[in-house]
Parts: sequence; C-alpha cells; structure tokens
Amino acid sequence: MSKQSALAEAFRQTVYKVPGHGDLIVQNLRTVLDQIDGDLESDRYGSGKIIEDFQDKMADLLGKEKAVFFPSGTMAQQIALRIWCDQRGVAKVAYHPLAHLEIHENDALRELHRIEPILLADKDRLIRLEDVMNLPEEISCLLLELPQREIGGQLPAFEELEAISKYCRERGIKLHMDGARLFEIMPYYGRSAAEISSLFDSVYISFYKGIGGIAGAILAGDSDFIDTSKVWKRRHGGDLISLYPYILSADYYFQQRNGKMQQYHEDAKALAGLYNACHGIATRPVEPVSNMFHVHIDMPKHQLEPLLIQCYEETGVGLTSYLVEAGDTSCAYEVSVGDRYAILPKERLKEALQWLDKKMMEL
Amino acid sequence: MSKQSALAEAFRQTVYKVPGHGDLIVQNLRTVLDQIDGDLESDRYGSGKIIEDFQDKMADLLGKEKAVFFPSGTMAQQIALRIWCDQRGVAKVAYHPLAHLEIHENDALRELHRIEPILLADKDRLIRLEDVMNLPEEISCLLLELPQREIGGQLPAFEELEAISKYCRERGIKLHMDGARLFEIMPYYGRSAAEISSLFDSVYISFYKGIGGIAGAILAGDSDFIDTSKVWKRRHGGDLISLYPYILSADYYFQQRNGKMQQYHEDAKALAGLYNACHGIATRPVEPVSNMFHVHIDMPKHQLEPLLIQCYEETGVGLTSYLVEAGDTSCAYEVSVGDRYAILPKERLKEALQWLDKKMMEL
Repeated sequence: MSKQSALAEAFRQTVYKVPGHGDLIVQNLRTVLDQIDGDLESDRYGSGKIIEDFQDKMADLLGKEKAVFFPSGTMAQQIALRIWCDQRGVAKVAYHPLAHLEIHENDALRELHRIEPILLADKDRLIRLEDVMNLPEEISCLLLELPQREIGGQLPAFEELEAISKYCRERGIKLHMDGARLFEIMPYYGRSAAEISSLFDSVYISFYKGIGGIAGAILAGDSDFIDTSKVWKRRHGGDLISLYPYILSADYYFQQRNGKMQQYHEDAKALAGLYNACHGIATRPVEPVSNMFHVHIDMPKHQLEPLLIQCYEETGVGLTSYLVEAGDTSCAYEVSVGDRYAILPKERLKEALQWLDKKMMEL
Repeated sequence: MSKQSALAEAFRQTVYKVPGHGDLIVQNLRTVLDQIDGDLESDRYGSGKIIEDFQDKMADLLGKEKAVFFPSGTMAQQIALRIWCDQRGVAKVAYHPLAHLEIHENDALRELHRIEPILLADKDRLIRLEDVMNLPEEISCLLLELPQREIGGQLPAFEELEAISKYCRERGIKLHMDGARLFEIMPYYGRSAAEISSLFDSVYISFYKGIGGIAGAILAGDSDFIDTSKVWKRRHGGDLISLYPYILSADYYFQQRNGKMQQYHEDAKALAGLYNACHGIATRPVEPVSNMFHVHIDMPKHQLEPLLIQCYEETGVGLTSYLVEAGDTSCAYEVSVGDRYAILPKERLKEALQWLDKKMMEL
C-alpha cells in the first residue's frame, strides 16, 4: 500500500477539515445508487438511456449541438485537439506552459497524437490576446483553461476572452475550453455556461472537481465534431461497456452542487481573506475568482510541515494535506472550497490561523 | 434513446433467458457496494489499497511480477503492443484477422501508435506454429487470443501453444495473450492461469465477460513492462482518480464465479448438444472448449428473425437477442453460458429447441 506523508496523516486525523467536499470514499457512490432503481439498464458502449439523456442535458447546458461522456478529461482533450488538427491539416496547437496536457499527461499529445504544442505566455501569468496575435507559427487550435489552475485559478476579463475568440475565428483557429472548473467560475463572470461556451468551438467539463462526482468528463461541440470524438473515444479505449457508475454520480452531484457555486465562491473569498491577514502568508489570486486559490507561505517546506502538524493536533483544524516547495524559502498548496466550509465552526478556523500567524511572527 | 430490434425486444420479454449471467442493470453494482464498508477510501490515480491489493492478487494468480488495472482491454492491449514495439524498435506486430484490435478498435493501433499489424492465418481458423514460422517480416510481438472468439471460441492444443511460445522466445518475439476469456478456458486445458500465462510475456484479462463484472481489465507482466504501462495508461486517459467501481466489482464477481467455470463449460457442451440435434443448426466448435460457442442456422436472417420471435412468445424461452448474417442463406449468433443456465428449466429449453427444429424441418 502507498505510504502517506506525516502531514497527510495528521490532516486525516483532524475533526475540522477546511477544503473540499469530504473524503473520497465508497459511500459517495453508494449514496448515488441508493437513489436509483436497481432495474435501470446499464449504458452499452455509449448507447442507452443513462448516457444519452445525460449527454443531451449537458449539450443543452453548454449550448452545443452534442456532447459525449468520457471517462477522463485527459482523453477528452487530446481527442478534441486531434480532431481540430486533423481537420486543418496542421499538427500544432497552443496552450499555457502549465496546461494539464503539458505537465500531467506524460507528453501524450506528442507520443500518441504527434501534435506539437506551442507554449504561450509565461508560467506565472495568463495568456493574453497579444500572445495569440504574436503566435510564431500556424496552429489548428488554441486551448484556454478557465480558470488557469496552476496559477491559483486566475481568469482573464470576459472582454479579453471575447477578443481572443473573435481573433481566432477570423483566422480559422479553433478555440477549445479546458473547463474542468467551468461551473466554479460562472458566478464571477455572471454568465451562463452556454454564454461562456459560445466563445469556444469545443468545451470539456469535469465532474469530480467542484461537482464532486466519482470521475468522468463531458466534451461538447458541433455534431460532426462529437461524432468523430466517439470514434477516437473507442480508439483510446474509453468506450467502456458500462460508464454508468460515473454518469449517475456526475448527474447526482451536479444536481446537488451546481446551485452552490456562488456560495463556494463567497466562502473562498472569506477564507482567502483570513489567510491574507496572517504574517508571511498570501493567497494567489489575492481575491479568488472561483472556489479555488493557492496559499503561499514564506517558510521552507521542511520547516512548515512540522508546524502544520502541531497546529492540526492543537486546534483540530486541517488546512491542507500536502505542501509543495515554491522556491528555496517558501512553499504552497491549493485550496478548493466545497461543502465542508459551510459546516466548519468559523471560530475554530480563526483560532487555527491565529495560531499559525503567531508562529510565523515568532520565526 | 437507442432503438432496440424487434428480436432484442422479444428476447427481453422472455421469462427463461438462456445465455449470460443476467441483465446488465445498476443492481449488479449495488450488490457489490452493499458488501463494502462505506468508509473505505477510494483509489487515487492508481494508488491506494483497493487498486494495489487487487493488482497484487491478479499478478499472483497469473504468475507475473506485476499487474495493473485498466478501464478497458482496448487500452491495455494497445499499450502492451506499443511497449514491445518500442523495446525492439520494430513497429510491427502479428495477430489473427479477427482479433479485437483489427475489427473493433477503429484502427487505433495505426492511428494512435503507428504500429502495423500483420494478419496471420485465415479468418476461419486458428493461428498455427507454421503461420508464425512463415512470417514474412520481422515483428516485435505476436498476439494470441485464447479462445479465438470470432470463430466460436476455438483453442489450439496446449502443445501447439508451447511450441509457438518456444519459437517466439528463441527469436526475441514477445508473445502477448488476449486472455479476455482466460478463466473460461482453464477447465479445458486443465491448467492454472499461471501455467498458461507462463508461455506469454504479457497477459490481458477481462472482468466483464465470464466474470460478469461492470467493466475493466488487468494487464500483467514483468516489473519494467508494468511500470511502463502505467505511463501509457496515463497518456491514454485511463489513469482515473477513482477506478474503484470497476475494481470492487471485478473482485466481487471474480470470487463469485471463478469457481464455476467448469460448470459453465459442462453446460455449454450440453447446450451445444441440444442445438446440434436440430435440423439445419450447427454449433462452432461442435463441442465447445469454454463457456462460449457460435450457433449457425441455415436460414436467412430476415426469415429466422420472425420465427425466433414466435418461438420466444410461444415458449417463453429466449435463445438470443440478435442475429448476424453469415452468407446469403444462413445466420449466426454467439452464446456465452453463465449463471442463467443453471436455473433454467431444461424441459422448457428442450421444448423451445424442438419447436425450432420442427419449423426448420418444415421450411
């Protein structure tokens, strides 16, 4: 069995966990199935009521002709880019240097699809219209991630998105949305999923991030695009005989949580405010534009780790289960606000952050 | 929603269904989860007790160093072939013209992996040692499917398998087993999974065929091979945050049904015998070597279909939910014997086949 870090173990023991919806446990799926008639027939290789109804519902929500359910976003996005590259006959795409495709997929785009990515913008900022205008080469597709997770979940102004979309359309460049956290940014933009998606030719959304499903993704676009994506889904080995465990839970938790995104955003702003009041601690962005942000702490990981463990033990509050190094003298972690925050006693949270603030001052 | 054929609908209405374990319904997963502690933690991107324990158990069973759980066999097998091709530096493999890779995966091996398959043997017979010896070109890997599904689930003599394995090893050709139905053939060979697998460098097994799980596959081999397969699993988009719905059900139904394979084989032989006693009906193989066989009926599909529907309505027995054309004057279908056969009143089954036999004589 995999070993857990001491910090992860200490986090696990806390009574008051701050981020997320809850533990990833089997009960999350059982709760879903308890709502379902046991005689309901499984989907079969992409057909059947369960999968077709959900796909139609998501296509409607995103304002696209069709949608298809995928086991993972990794699969859905590579396939989207492949289709656009094949269509234009140019095996080049552009995305952010910290896109999921670049840092979490073992170079799959090159190894499986022979597509060359062009990295736009610096690692620590968003892609701007200017970057797109200065593209050195012809590309088939530009991928924009909303929000840009690896820099704390930042967002361009909606007007900049519109300008990028217009520029791409004029030049025949397809625009693809990595909308893994699309639902989470709708309160900030104050626009519907369909309004945001209308700027894009293809859209991927995820069901185990803000929605808190078990796994799975939707890819949406026009009818031809989606039909072709089903051929590629089979090629990738994603056309399983039964995807219903993921689809039913995606649908269930979407209904449970889609209406709470505004609250998560408010909570994220409140929590970020508490962090930013501490010495040597800053969130990125300072004011979150979704339910997520990054916490940067001016202390090396090896020093902060035992401190956090002590904090968890003394206050019962769990702030994070992990730390990553961010330079020599500081470290960072990601916070996604979910259902847990609403039931968290806020005085206990403040107590824990005051404890941390005091230690940061002393050291 | 997808429309069902009239035959499928008539089959659905029958009380006494002959093939398979049962309907593909949500209850199959709920039954599994009802046995599990709800607090059990999900696997996480390939790590955690649920996935690691099951992989270890399957590696032991197959007598291989390591095993990895995949969402699908399509994904597992392409990856196995890619690894062997990369290792030898030759992007060519050989398999049967009716291999799953050739007829059900939309040319994925070429489109995703740039691997050229060489088709061995004729469509209507097994690959023999002679075919391998006469290979026109250098290949990295030979894939053998045990049993060869598309020709009714036929098997080579174990001695021929041994000879092919020896020949390949002497020439540095890797031997991969499509063992989607490996458990189903162990009674016939009278050998353990590990004994059969020892002839192969890599082995894929499935959990939703004879085992009747929800979906999912295991790929097993040596340690380096499996470590590399995990990199490819991520590239393919198969490294899901949670695969536990499939793993828990694979484990549960494996325990339920692994011990019944001998019975399924006996039942398949009995059922094939009943079919072969009918006019104009023959099974392939005549005597099944696993729980599966094909039924060939000397009557065109458009003529047989209404006849079968009438048979189902009059006898309440469901023989098959579909027919495929096999030439101009006959048609065929596949039978996999599972749990249903044991509880089927045999006099009703005989009645149905006698009804069919009589009609076949009359026409």
